[in-house]
Order: sequence, then C-alpha cells, then structure tokens
Amino acid sequence: METNVIETNAVLDLMWILIAGILVFFMQAGFTLVESGFTRSKNVINIVMKNFVDLIVGSLGFWIIGYTIMYGESIGSFIGSPSLFYSVREDMHNLFFQTVFCATAATIVSGAVAERTKFSTYVIFSLVMTIFIYPISGHWVWQGDGWLTSLGFIDFAGSTVVHSVGGWAALVGAALVGPRIGKYTEGKSNAIPGHNMMYGALGVFILWLGWFGFNGGSELAISGDSAFNVAGIIITTNLAAAAGAITALFLTWVRYGKPEVSMTLNGALAGLVGITAGCAAVSPLSAAIIGVICGLTVVFSIEFIDKKLKIDDPVGAVSVHGVCGALGTLLVGVFAIDGGLINGGGFAQLGVQAIGVIAIGAWALITSFIVLFILKKTMGLRVTKEEEIEGLDMHEHDGAAYPDFTIDR
Amino acid sequence: METNVIETNAVLDLMWILIAGILVFFMQAGFTLVESGFTRSKNVINIVMKNFVDLIVGSLGFWIIGYTIMYGESIGSFIGSPSLFYSVREDMHNLFFQTVFCATAATIVSGAVAERTKFSTYVIFSLVMTIFIYPISGHWVWQGDGWLTSLGFIDFAGSTVVHSVGGWAALVGAALVGPRIGKYTEGKSNAIPGHNMMYGALGVFILWLGWFGFNGGSELAISGDSAFNVAGIIITTNLAAAAGAITALFLTWVRYGKPEVSMTLNGALAGLVGITAGCAAVSPLSAAIIGVICGLTVVFSIEFIDKKLKIDDPVGAVSVHGVCGALGTLLVGVFAIDGGLINGGGFAQLGVQAIGVIAIGAWALITSFIVLFILKKTMGLRVTKEEEIEGLDMHEHDGAAYPDFTIDR
Amino acid sequence: METNVIETNAVLDLMWILIAGILVFFMQAGFTLVESGFTRSKNVINIVMKNFVDLIVGSLGFWIIGYTIMYGESIGSFIGSPSLFYSVREDMHNLFFQTVFCATAATIVSGAVAERTKFSTYVIFSLVMTIFIYPISGHWVWQGDGWLTSLGFIDFAGSTVVHSVGGWAALVGAALVGPRIGKYTEGKSNAIPGHNMMYGALGVFILWLGWFGFNGGSELAISGDSAFNVAGIIITTNLAAAAGAITALFLTWVRYGKPEVSMTLNGALAGLVGITAGCAAVSPLSAAIIGVICGLTVVFSIEFIDKKLKIDDPVGAVSVHGVCGALGTLLVGVFAIDGGLINGGGFAQLGVQAIGVIAIGAWALITSFIVLFILKKTMGLRVTKEEEIEGLDMHEHDGAAYPDFTIDR
Repeated sequence: METNVIETNAVLDLMWILIAGILVFFMQAGFTLVESGFTRSKNVINIVMKNFVDLIVGSLGFWIIGYTIMYGESIGSFIGSPSLFYSVREDMHNLFFQTVFCATAATIVSGAVAERTKFSTYVIFSLVMTIFIYPISGHWVWQGDGWLTSLGFIDFAGSTVVHSVGGWAALVGAALVGPRIGKYTEGKSNAIPGHNMMYGALGVFILWLGWFGFNGGSELAISGDSAFNVAGIIITTNLAAAAGAITALFLTWVRYGKPEVSMTLNGALAGLVGITAGCAAVSPLSAAIIGVICGLTVVFSIEFIDKKLKIDDPVGAVSVHGVCGALGTLLVGVFAIDGGLINGGGFAQLGVQAIGVIAIGAWALITSFIVLFILKKTMGLRVTKEEEIEGLDMHEHDGAAYPDFTIDR
Repeated sequence: METNVIETNAVLDLMWILIAGILVFFMQAGFTLVESGFTRSKNVINIVMKNFVDLIVGSLGFWIIGYTIMYGESIGSFIGSPSLFYSVREDMHNLFFQTVFCATAATIVSGAVAERTKFSTYVIFSLVMTIFIYPISGHWVWQGDGWLTSLGFIDFAGSTVVHSVGGWAALVGAALVGPRIGKYTEGKSNAIPGHNMMYGALGVFILWLGWFGFNGGSELAISGDSAFNVAGIIITTNLAAAAGAITALFLTWVRYGKPEVSMTLNGALAGLVGITAGCAAVSPLSAAIIGVICGLTVVFSIEFIDKKLKIDDPVGAVSVHGVCGALGTLLVGVFAIDGGLINGGGFAQLGVQAIGVIAIGAWALITSFIVLFILKKTMGLRVTKEEEIEGLDMHEHDGAAYPDFTIDR
Repeated sequence: METNVIETNAVLDLMWILIAGILVFFMQAGFTLVESGFTRSKNVINIVMKNFVDLIVGSLGFWIIGYTIMYGESIGSFIGSPSLFYSVREDMHNLFFQTVFCATAATIVSGAVAERTKFSTYVIFSLVMTIFIYPISGHWVWQGDGWLTSLGFIDFAGSTVVHSVGGWAALVGAALVGPRIGKYTEGKSNAIPGHNMMYGALGVFILWLGWFGFNGGSELAISGDSAFNVAGIIITTNLAAAAGAITALFLTWVRYGKPEVSMTLNGALAGLVGITAGCAAVSPLSAAIIGVICGLTVVFSIEFIDKKLKIDDPVGAVSVHGVCGALGTLLVGVFAIDGGLINGGGFAQLGVQAIGVIAIGAWALITSFIVLFILKKTMGLRVTKEEEIEGLDMHEHDGAAYPDFTIDR
C-alpha cells in the first residue's frame, strides 16, 4: 500500500492535469457551437453528431490504441509501440489529458467539411485521425524520443502537433469534398452566413476558456517553480487571444467599413492557436505581438482560401488552425526568450521550427489525402445534391434541429 | 488560531471537493438545456423556472434541514438527527458538495413531467424531494451508519442514491400526471420532437463535464493515493459515456436506418448514470462494457416505456436515470475488481446490490406516489387543457421565450 | 534556480487564484448571454461585439497600464504609480485574476445602454473604464494603502469596487443615451421583452457558477485556514443567490399574479451582488437574509427606475449591480460576525461603509458623466433612429444574428 502513496507535489501536478483536461474537454462544446453557429440551421444535428463522434471515437480510440502509438516506447523515433486498452493506473491522468487533445485535432476537420459531407465517411475519417494520423506525428514531438524532439523542435502545447495537423487535414477534406452548392457561381464567391451568431460567440468564449487548460495544462505540472510558468502561460494565452481579436476587429472595420463579428471571433481563435506553440517561451509583450500577427494573418488567409483558392471552408478552420498553427510555431523561433524554453533561440531555432512545420504539414496533408481519396472512391465523401439542398439533418439523421420555427432557407 | 490551521493534504482534499462541487453545480444548466431542447418552445420559461427552483429549493432546503436528515447522527440506521441551519465552519465544503447532489436528484423529475405540470405543485414536490425523500434513502448508504452500508451495499457516487431515486420519482410523476395532449392517439404513440437540438447537445456536453466532478469528487479526497483513484474515476467515467453514446448511435442506425441524435445524447447520459455506482471499482475495460450495456438498455427502455407502458416521459428521464441507475448499481456486483472498492465481489455482492436497488426503488416509488397522489387530489398536478395547448409559458409565467420569432406549433 | 522554487502552500494559493480567475473569465459569456437574451434579436451581434470588446480591452488595457494604476505603489492613497506592460513573473496569477475582475466592471455598462448605443463610442468608454475609472477607485480599497482601506472600509470581493462602479456608470450611460424608441409613449412605460429566455437562464447559471470564483478567489489564498474561509464563502455566495431568486420569484407571484422569469433570474444576480462585499464576514443565515433583502430590493428598484425615473435599462443592470452592490456593502456593517473580517462591526462600521459607498458612487457617477458627456457632444452616443429601428446588427456590423429564421419584429 505504502508504495502507492504519492507525495504532495505529485498530487498537485496530477490534480492540475485533471482540471486542465476537464477544461480542454469543454472545448468540444465550443467547437460544436462555433461550427453550428457559422453554418445553416438545416445541418445542426449533423454537426452535433460529427463533433460528438470526434469526442466518442477519440475517447475510445485513443484509449484502445492511439495513446500507445503516440506515447509508447519509440520504434525508430517514428512511432510508439502499440498496446491495447491502456490502463496503467498511475498514468490515467495523462491518458485523460492526451485523449481530449486528440479529440480536438479530429474535430477541427469537421468545420471545414461541414454541410455536405456524408456522416458515415466522416466517422471513419475521425477514427483514422484518432489512431493513426495524429498520434504518429505527435510521437515525433511529444514522446521524448521522437526525431523532431531530437532536432530541438519546440511546440509546447501543440500549434503544430494538434492545430496544424487538424488544419491541414481540414484543407484536404474541404478541397476533396468540394464547395457547397451555391458557394461559387460564375467564378464569384458568395457568402453563406451562419445561422446563429450567439452560438458562435458562446463557442469562442468556451474555447478561449478551455485554452487556459490546453496551454496551462501542457506544463504537465504546477508544483514548485512550474506554478509561475503556468501563470505566465495563462497570461500569454489571454493576451494573444485579445490581441488577435482586436486586430481582426479593426482590420475588418478598416477593410470592409464595419467591425465584423465572425472575423473578430476567428481573430481570437487565431491568436490562441498562434500562441500555443510558444506560450511558455515568450514574454507577455511578445505574446501580444504574436496575437496581432495572427489576427492580421487569419483575415487575409480566409479571404485568400475563399476567393483565390476557391476552397470552401465554412468556418475558416484551415486559416485558424492550419495557417496560424504553422505561423505560431515559426514565431517561437523569433520571440523565444533566452533562458526560457529555448536556450539557443535565433536563426538556428527558426530553421528547426520550419523543419517541424513542414514535416508534420507534409505528413498530415499526404496521409489525409490518401485516406480521403480512398474514401471518396469507395464510400463517397459527399451527400447527394438533393440531400445537401434539403439539409443533412433530415436526410442523414431523420430530424430537424428547430421544428417549432419558420425557417427561411 | 493554531487549532484552525489545517495541513496541506486536507487543503488539497477540500479544494478538490469545492472544485468538483462547482462542476456538479454546472450540471443544473445542463439539465435545463437538455429538458428545454427536447421539448417544445412554448414551455421553455416553465422549464427554466422548474430547474431554477430545484437549485434554489435544494440550496436552501438542504442547508436548512436536508443535510442533517441525511448526514446527522443516525437514528436507527434509518434517518439522521435533524438540526436547523447547518453551519459547522469546518464542514461547509461537504455541505456544498452534497447540496448540488441533492439538486440533481430533484431536477431529474422535472423532465419526465414536462409540458403539462402545474408550477405551484412542482415547487412543493421539489421541496419534498429535497428535505425528505432524497436525504432519507441517502442516509441508508452514505452516512456511514445506514442499514444498507452495514449490508455492504456499494454505490460510490450515486447511480441509485441520486439517479434512480430521481428516476423512480420521475416515473411516478409521469404516470400520475398523464401523457401530454396528442401524445397517444388511437393507441399509437406519436413523436413530439424537441425544439432545439443544439440545446440538447450543449446540455449533454455540460452534464458530461459536470460528471467528472460528480464521480471524481465522490472520492471526497485527492491527496495521497486518492489522486490515482480520482484519475481512474475520470477515465472510467469518460469511457462509459463514450461507449454508451456510440452504442446508442449504432443501435439507432441499425434499428431505424439512421443515426439518431436524441438517442445518441441519451446514450451518453445512460453510460454516465450507469458508471456512477462503480466508477471507482471497475477497470477501464469494464467501464466501457458497462457503457455499452447501458447504451443498449436506454434505447429499448425508452421504447418500452413509451410504446408499451404508454407513459409519456418527454426526455427519457426514467430510462436514463431510473433504469440505468439501477442497472449500473447491479453491474458493480459483476465488474468490481478484487482489491478495489469491493473486496468480496461476486454473487454475494450482486445480492446485496439487488437489495439496495430494490429497497431504495421501493422507497422512492412509494413516497413519491403518496406525495404526488395527495397533491393530485388537492392542488392538482396538471394545468388545464387550454393552458397546455397554448403553452405553460404564457399561462403559468405570463411570458414567451422567443417573442421575436414566428413559431409554427 | 533554487530561489525560484516556491513552497507548496504558495503553489496551492496560486493554483486556486488561477482556477478562480478562469471561472470569473467565464462570467463574460454569462453577461453576454443575459444581455442578449433580455433584448431583441436584431441587436445580438452588437451585444456580442460589445461584450467581446470589454474582455479584449480589459485584457490588454489592464495589462498595459490599468493594473499598476490600481495596484502600483500608492501616490497619496489615491492612485497607483503607473508602469507599462506589467510582466513581473511572480505576479502573473494576480494580474490574471484582477484582469477578469476589471472586464466584469466594464461589461456591466453594456446591458444598460443596449440596443441604441454607437459601437465606436462604446469601445472608447470601455477603455476609459478599464484604465481610469475602475482602477482608481479600486486602488482606494484593494491596494492596501488606499484611503478607504485606512478608514477600515470593507468590500471583500467587490460589491462596490466592481459592481456598483459598473452599475453607476450604467446609470449615467442609460440616462445620457436616452430610452429606446417606443419604450415610453404617452408617459407610459412599455415592456420590450427579451428575445431568448434560455440565453437569459444559461447566462445566469454561468454567472452564478463564475461567482464562486469571484468571491471564493478573492480570499487570494486557500492554504491553511483559508481553506475553511473559501468553503464558507462558497456557501454564503450560494445561499444569497438562492434566497435572492426565491424572494424575487414569490414577490412577482404575489405582485403580478404569476412567477416571472426575468425577475427571478435578476433576483439571483441581486443576491450574488449583495453578498459579494460580505461573503467572508457573515454567517450562512445572514447571507440568506442579505439575499432576501436584495431580492426584494431589486424588484422594486427595477420598477422605480423604469416607471418613476423613466430611465431605460433593458437588463436591470443599474438595480442589480448599482443598487444591490451599494446595499450589500452597507449590510456588511449590519451582519458582520465578531471575530470575522470586521472586528468592530456595528454602527461605526456602518458609517465607514456608507462613506465608501458614497465616495466610490460619486467617483463613478462624476467621471462617467464627464466622459460620456464629452463623447455625446463629440462622437455622439447614439445610433440614428433608422439604425435603431432596423437593428444595430445590420447597420453597425453588416450582419444578422439569425438569417435563417423569420423574425417578427
């Protein structure tokens, strides 16, 4: 019995990891609200079901095998040794924390392919993300013996490991499934406004809240000097979010004549994604600057992907998570403090950051392309034209989200 | 002064109980969202008011007398010695944690009797649950000297003590108040779809979140070895929820041709209710199996109660909380680990579990029947036909939840 | 390195402050939901943007200069010594906690001026609240060397420092911007019902939840004997909220014939605001009595301001935060326990409380009047008549919150 008793500092650390994990868990509700709010009322049930599946499949799949693929003993610095039904009693807090991270990565894809993707195909892709794509590239960075760790690559809480993996898979998904009917007509991009801006806002508040756990919990400790690190992380996280939001707010005000709500909300998320890699390594001022950079970037990136690439990403997931995730990871090389996480810093570090961003980006793009291409040729990615027009709720789930209300479109 | 200073481990435990209690508190918002989302828009204010009353009456009533009825010195292993206005400074964290538990039990009834019950009557029944029905049977199991504790009955976090007590009272309530107008016509059960599936989903996310506090906090400690117990509980809780949800999802897909959202959401809740008794005593794998069993059970139980018994339970509360609460308590006898909470395990334990489930079930059924029958014959349980058709919001509360929108029904 | 290591009790305290701060952060979502739910659907985006701005500007402004104006070395017991970009590593947890408090004060104004105020003007006023009005009066009470501290003024968690400052600024704002079109016709006050009572209820649940952090975190510690203080605070907070709500519920039932939802929700908030000053100094029973007093007061105050003063405060912010904040601060002088926070108590303390309430009230009224009057004469406070009638969402933000639904007004 005595050997099981752990000492106070270890209890503090474990307790913090659990609390942080509970906050990250709540982000699933945030993602569901944002995706649903930014799309049409005829697809709400489908969006709920997809996000729910990400959480369910993530919880089960990561426990069954994903966690050991990511954190098991390294095979060639590339993949962990898988074992089934992970149940090491002394490590259940880490399993929980990593499970909710995994569910986040999977759920990013959901928004980009919203309103036209087959539910059955989505379930399978969510499983592949959970037990294959995400844990393998994650192993490279966070297991300790991965090849990117050896190079000195820094991604503290997952700008690249979580967000850009999700973002690049989202890009592939949105491109392969094609734009929603009516999105591009005569070479012009048409706005398809979301059906509930309060959901969008509440979702962003919940995500911002959850991010304190996402970044703060990634310290994986709070005892001793870690306490100050965690507090510092919460400040850098909060400042980057605020700076990203205000930047997008004013940029849209200048550019479109009025402060625009969905861009402002995405600006906050862009700041949050951007600071995730460096939250423990940069000063508050640098965090605010990273937020500003990401707030500017996300507006132009959303425009570029929508109007130039003509890839239909209803919620801006590729820009928020892919582009700002990669950018935030690179900016660690620019803004990291000497004596902080990064000892060397400077140009060499920037090079290492670029290698990591490119390697993981290539991994996510290629693997998700292969999987989604196969799914497209077999099960099909997309619902029929009729199903899309009448709404996925009715055709995929035999229901309606708001049967009491008169719907205009 | 020195005598008031408590040592670090006690602080850790108290802090965890407070945080867990805050999470359980939030479940009230989850219940309100689920009940409201699964019913019609004309009764939203009434549902808000009922759930609010459960929280208010629970907070006041449990403090005034309920807490000591449950946890006061045992009188004959049956009831605690009541005292008024409990205010022992060193025990306020436990009062808080138990208060939010009590509010949960009361609020389960709300959903089953939704859309046709008189508000005034409901307020009185909520009070009776708070200070009489719930604390007395709770005393039998959780006070330490109760007669079910003496038998060795195990209900770690309240599958029976909280959920099935609420569920059986809900069954009596739904039966006595009768079905909603239009629910059963020509012997056929008609679906009455809920008015907002996003509320339903957000509510389930919040309930799932709160359950980490509900089950994890029931360890009543986190210092020393309890830390690993708490982490294990959070994993078993999460896995049972996920397994329950995916089971219900696929079962509806197979059975009705399409994956159905309200059953999937109820599947998650069924897994959560089911694991509550044994969350600290079973392995992760057993937790997932319990989730699967409850996910199957809830679908068939909802069908059975609706179509065979013809009892109208708009949200499925009886099946989720009553049936799966009882089932989860029995399953402790099947899945408990040697050396875990249950030392004996096996057939003998299963017998004890059955005694507890039956005794508490009988208590809840009989007492709530007596109280509700008296209320029916005196104040009346039900609003008038006109009030029900036009909506309880207008007639009971002189308001409308959504005055800006065109409502179809 | 050794010098950076902090001991366990300090870690516990820091961790509690961070967790409490995260709960307070979430209150921003609660305020947004309440304000939006209690107003019309054509102004939802505007309300989201205003509340978001309060959080953004609060986060940036308080870090840039507000925090040191409030907590910097005292200049004449009146104002802190300002310094820019506060980044003392060992104090980031306090910066975070105080930042979310500041954002709360600013956001109270938003509700009172809803549905007719220019967004650009609001942004500027939010900045002035953040870096000038709030931190200076806050300095008088919470910095340690302020002149009200010296007098013995007690405002534990900010009934006056936060809530009544926000509430009085809200009063000035609502008076200067004038009533909404159609609110007062032929000398009669017309009710303008809110568009979503579920938002209102969810918002209040979230605010109530966040208040456990607001009041409990204001202990600024949890180690040692503080643990019991924190638990006691959570109980007094919960009881005052419940008592306030049930009082308002029954008062409206008696007064208007039916239990009214928005008053019941405001009753809970009134109890919460009222207990904030004395949550650590009063017994549970006194807390319940304070809740009852505030629950009565808020109903009559909302009526008085609406019907007698004819000041249009769409959400009742002035009554909830201003009136009940002042009242709760005075009640500390009546209900404080000997040996608790207040050693003297009694009539002398009541006098000191009155001085603080009046001084800070005057400060908030005068400064916000000057600033808003200047803004009125320069930029203008109010949108045009056409913009107000068609909705601020369309005109100020070029969007609609619910484009899929048929809107009646």
